[in-house]
Amino acid sequence: MDAGRLIEITDPGDARIAEFTSIRERDLTGRQGQFIAEGTVVLSMLAKAHGGSGPVRAEKLLLLKNRVAGLSDVIDQFPADVPVYVAETAVLDAIAGFHLHRGVLAVGSRAAPPDLASLVSQLPDNALVLVGCGISNHDNIGALFRNAAGFTADAVLLDETCCDPLYRKALRVSVGSVLAVPYARKESVETVLGTLAEAGFEIWALSPSGTVEIGGIKPGRRVALVMGTEGEGLPAAILERFHSARIAQAPGLDSLNVGTASGIALYAIARAMGRLG
Amino acid sequence: MDAGRLIEITDPGDARIAEFTSIRERDLTGRQGQFIAEGTVVLSMLAKAHGGSGPVRAEKLLLLKNRVAGLSDVIDQFPADVPVYVAETAVLDAIAGFHLHRGVLAVGSRAAPPDLASLVSQLPDNALVLVGCGISNHDNIGALFRNAAGFTADAVLLDETCCDPLYRKALRVSVGSVLAVPYARKESVETVLGTLAEAGFEIWALSPSGTVEIGGIKPGRRVALVMGTEGEGLPAAILERFHSARIAQAPGLDSLNVGTASGIALYAIARAMGRLG
Repeated sequence: MDAGRLIEITDPGDARIAEFTSIRERDLTGRQGQFIAEGTVVLSMLAKAHGGSGPVRAEKLLLLKNRVAGLSDVIDQFPADVPVYVAETAVLDAIAGFHLHRGVLAVGSRAAPPDLASLVSQLPDNALVLVGCGISNHDNIGALFRNAAGFTADAVLLDETCCDPLYRKALRVSVGSVLAVPYARKESVETVLGTLAEAGFEIWALSPSGTVEIGGIKPGRRVALVMGTEGEGLPAAILERFHSARIAQAPGLDSLNVGTASGIALYAIARAMGRLG
Repeated sequence: MDAGRLIEITDPGDARIAEFTSIRERDLTGRQGQFIAEGTVVLSMLAKAHGGSGPVRAEKLLLLKNRVAGLSDVIDQFPADVPVYVAETAVLDAIAGFHLHRGVLAVGSRAAPPDLASLVSQLPDNALVLVGCGISNHDNIGALFRNAAGFTADAVLLDETCCDPLYRKALRVSVGSVLAVPYARKESVETVLGTLAEAGFEIWALSPSGTVEIGGIKPGRRVALVMGTEGEGLPAAILERFHSARIAQAPGLDSLNVGTASGIALYAIARAMGRLG
């Protein structure tokens, strides 16, 4: 790494790092298309995404000075026109508005997600997609993406009532998978499922009242798994119109966490489709 | 519900509700055997546990005044000698030290967990136990218990380096399962696994480098599943000494979240053991 590349910040009010000020509050407002990446693993995913042909770009890095040496390999993956700002702990904490344990931040941006129809039209013949309906919890959205990546899903299709996966915490919980897995998030769940059905997808809604146990299904060539929220679950109209599956478990308990349930169901389906080697 | 049972608190400094003051900070100190239960579902689990023959007792409830009517069924499950304190929002927030969305709190206590040998000796012939090694994250501990309950595990055995499952957040994430599933947490992982091996348990350590894919194992009559941390995983000595299993997934990615991985593995094993109906 060329040490001349590092730009030292000593004033928390410096305009060059304005995107990082009070990032907790800022996160709540959700800046369209721009996002904060946190931690080494997500930074590394950002570097990969920036180098690819996808919609994600890195804008700038802000690092704790004493972390720089250990991060030189990752820094080198960013082209020279991505500025790397460094600061001491006190300055960094004053910028962020709280104590940053890790001291690794970046700002990235991505073009508006593709529209649903064009994303679906680009999916391979043998495709697995994960659909989220009404998932507003940032941890759960992050978990959906982490599991989608882990179990080879080709895309994540969120309905318009799901929260933005670019939120700082969702991105962190996804371990950066939000930057790697294609997704859409503009349409109603009816439109998403209608588009998938027209494209020949077999649609499985997951629900504690599902008619088939998930480990017993024989999935087709193109499969969509639909996840609802923990409390209300999926709308009855969806459960009636499409296939529904349940995860066998101890009777009389609260259902599983959405992230865990999506992991179990994706694992079972991807395995039955022969996608997991 | 007898409204005469409700005791109104108007002074945040009232000694009768001292256990609830500044519960966030208090949580960090971890009071031996005493715990804070939060939310309706956990309160309901506390009522059940208090009524049972186990080590868990409810000491007192503190509720937001406008939540009382909706909670009368749950309140009635606690015997009359468990005091029910009520307060308005401003008083309750001043007591807790932050804004409580839900307004449902209780203090409970439990006797010291049983020692490992006596807990293991009480397990049924056909048993499934979950072992945690080095799990220090409160969310992950909570997830282990939630999944253990969901997939019929008879006990959770934590090594001495795991965090206390009675922490407020672990208890909340477990949706109260910490109060229902028997557990121990005093010994080293070597002692835990040695005790289980002597008691005839087949021991499966879960690891990305495991030799058998988890969906393909034919488990015996008594099975223990061992989970390590996300970063370091399980010690090599454990992976060498016992059976090891992996969850098939996309190559080259960070491993799954511990909670999700425990859910997938417990589901696969409990299903193969014929425990899930």
